[in-house]
Amino acid sequence: MNIVNLDHISSNPLLSEVKEAMIDAIQNDLHNPSSQHKAGEHAAGLLESARETCSQLINASSAREIVFTSGGTESVNHALKGAALANGNKGNHIITTNIEHNSVIRSLKRLSSQGFQITSLPVDKTGRVLPKDISNAITDKTILISVMHSNNETGIVQPIEEIGKIAREKKVLFHTDAVDSVGVLPVDVKSLNVDLLSFSSNTFYGPTGVGGLYIRKGARVFPLLDGGVQENNKRAGTQNLIGIIGMGKAAEQAIVHMDKRMQHLQELKNYLVEQLPSYVDEYLVNTNLKHSLPNLLNISLKYIEGESVMLMLDDENVAVSTKSACATGSLRASHVLLSLGLSHADAQGTLVISWGIDNTKDDMNKLLSALKNVVATLRHMSPLYKKQKVKI
Amino acid sequence: MNIVNLDHISSNPLLSEVKEAMIDAIQNDLHNPSSQHKAGEHAAGLLESARETCSQLINASSAREIVFTSGGTESVNHALKGAALANGNKGNHIITTNIEHNSVIRSLKRLSSQGFQITSLPVDKTGRVLPKDISNAITDKTILISVMHSNNETGIVQPIEEIGKIAREKKVLFHTDAVDSVGVLPVDVKSLNVDLLSFSSNTFYGPTGVGGLYIRKGARVFPLLDGGVQENNKRAGTQNLIGIIGMGKAAEQAIVHMDKRMQHLQELKNYLVEQLPSYVDEYLVNTNLKHSLPNLLNISLKYIEGESVMLMLDDENVAVSTKSACATGSLRASHVLLSLGLSHADAQGTLVISWGIDNTKDDMNKLLSALKNVVATLRHMSPLYKKQKVKI
Repeated sequence: MNIVNLDHISSNPLLSEVKEAMIDAIQNDLHNPSSQHKAGEHAAGLLESARETCSQLINASSAREIVFTSGGTESVNHALKGAALANGNKGNHIITTNIEHNSVIRSLKRLSSQGFQITSLPVDKTGRVLPKDISNAITDKTILISVMHSNNETGIVQPIEEIGKIAREKKVLFHTDAVDSVGVLPVDVKSLNVDLLSFSSNTFYGPTGVGGLYIRKGARVFPLLDGGVQENNKRAGTQNLIGIIGMGKAAEQAIVHMDKRMQHLQELKNYLVEQLPSYVDEYLVNTNLKHSLPNLLNISLKYIEGESVMLMLDDENVAVSTKSACATGSLRASHVLLSLGLSHADAQGTLVISWGIDNTKDDMNKLLSALKNVVATLRHMSPLYKKQKVKI
Repeated sequence: MNIVNLDHISSNPLLSEVKEAMIDAIQNDLHNPSSQHKAGEHAAGLLESARETCSQLINASSAREIVFTSGGTESVNHALKGAALANGNKGNHIITTNIEHNSVIRSLKRLSSQGFQITSLPVDKTGRVLPKDISNAITDKTILISVMHSNNETGIVQPIEEIGKIAREKKVLFHTDAVDSVGVLPVDVKSLNVDLLSFSSNTFYGPTGVGGLYIRKGARVFPLLDGGVQENNKRAGTQNLIGIIGMGKAAEQAIVHMDKRMQHLQELKNYLVEQLPSYVDEYLVNTNLKHSLPNLLNISLKYIEGESVMLMLDDENVAVSTKSACATGSLRASHVLLSLGLSHADAQGTLVISWGIDNTKDDMNKLLSALKNVVATLRHMSPLYKKQKVKI
């Protein structure tokens, strides 16, 4: 299938360098990195080399601060549940925001059923939480703050560095879900003042089902997976070595090419934002253009359903999404967009357009032409649209 | 490196069919199986096909009873913590045995710090737990029983079917850690009467870092990873699709070739047991030869350290292990062997020899010759051995 992939936020293709590294690992029959014979030591060398590269990608002080996981969701569950349970003796209060990914929301819901109190803060009209709101919410029972680095539906980037300063000053553990940022933007755990940071390999063109959790040295966090002594006793279970080798290679490439990639992605974003008005009218741009990822634009097309637009674009071989792939099957409007102040109707008309280093202006042109036709067709059938036109 | 791998329990090589399937998946840039466009549906088809094959491998009633995980350790953590927390309103008592894998022991330890009461039962001299001991330990507070199917250090197989009958009769959830059995022996969740069963891809020559959890329809278990709606809302997180495709192919091959493989593995076991006395003396066989896996033998060589034997065999390019790879770095004697009644000294002299479908009698001969020399050298230096000889 020759599909224009403008749904990169759901899945990025593997880099050719990553494919090569993974195929090499598959062909070479690597042993268990925990085994103490030569074959095990060889595997351990490859594992630790990937850990070193990932630690450089986020500027960790030491590779030992990186724990390999099965992806962003496990990293987030590990960070939140592990930090809450390990610090439950100090307090039971956790602060977060209304726009987090479901892995954060549902992990905290689980913790609330175990006696933890959750304060979830709103964002302003620009989609950002105010650091002073975080500061005001902290009590002497607060043990953890979790705020996402960038949002997976709108691309909006949060003021993590400022929140991190507040958290450090108040001596509260601070986690950021940076799953959609690490490998796209420069992310530096030291300047962000975070104790815990979740990331995912596929965001930077590594395989899915692999990720990492940064745990600052000294941060008190229980394992989520108990068992063997792997990962410096922080995450039990024989590692997905083939996937981790792929992530290590992807991290290496992200470090080398980050500036060039960002420029390309931002150019495509500027082009899309500029061109859109020539193809469709009556839409909202939900992405804060000043503080956002360079590879995503969230728009709401009035009077029609995003789901229908997505399916009709699919017929034209253009892949986009309407919300987080993790929420597929749920018919509810996105909590992220409702938090931004959108009406239910506008939230239902949402398209998430996300691109990658492999996309071109030509891909954007294909999307724009297809979108023009699809929107016209759907609005032609839309009773809401007709009513609106009569009013005017 | 041309190494004789007699440490298959730590890592099995990938089947050529598995390599091919994984490389194909890597080359084909699969999209997110949760995405609703064509590219997503294509990926979902591959995911569900692997789920169907894995369900056949353990004779589940439906593919929906299979949850893909990041390996045996996650499966075990999910089963135990998920079942305990979901049924905590009914009681807080859990029954297990003294010979479980660390993933079980440490998950239960975590639960005990959260108010659950754990009863851990001994095994008899043959290494097996008595079903009547399980029956006697059940109280009206018992919500969960966890007994491993086969032991990863001794290969001893437990009477799961009988324990399952007792659990079902008493309406207590029953989990078996079948990580070292599924794909080696016929395992049938229906005849075993289990509600929860953990398995791992690498045991049947699929990739590491991938596994599954069987959750019988109707069994009440909370997710371990909260977040998106993947895996029928039982395990959040974008799947490791490349790994799962590899596991699916490995499961297919295990189903087709199980009988032939078992015969080959058992022949190698018989050969090793027969030949050993011609090469070494003064050793214990810790594996119950009647009730055990066909691919593993645990022996204790008197007066010397297993660790030294392992390292010297490694110099001869023969890989074996001394205990679970998950316990590497710990100098303590194996809790499994101490539970069998071995002295600390004998437990320290242990070798775990484990083979696979790729091994031959010639490999066993290489091991035996190398072992003869290594044991002679080490005993020559052993003060314990000299003392013993003087006594005789």
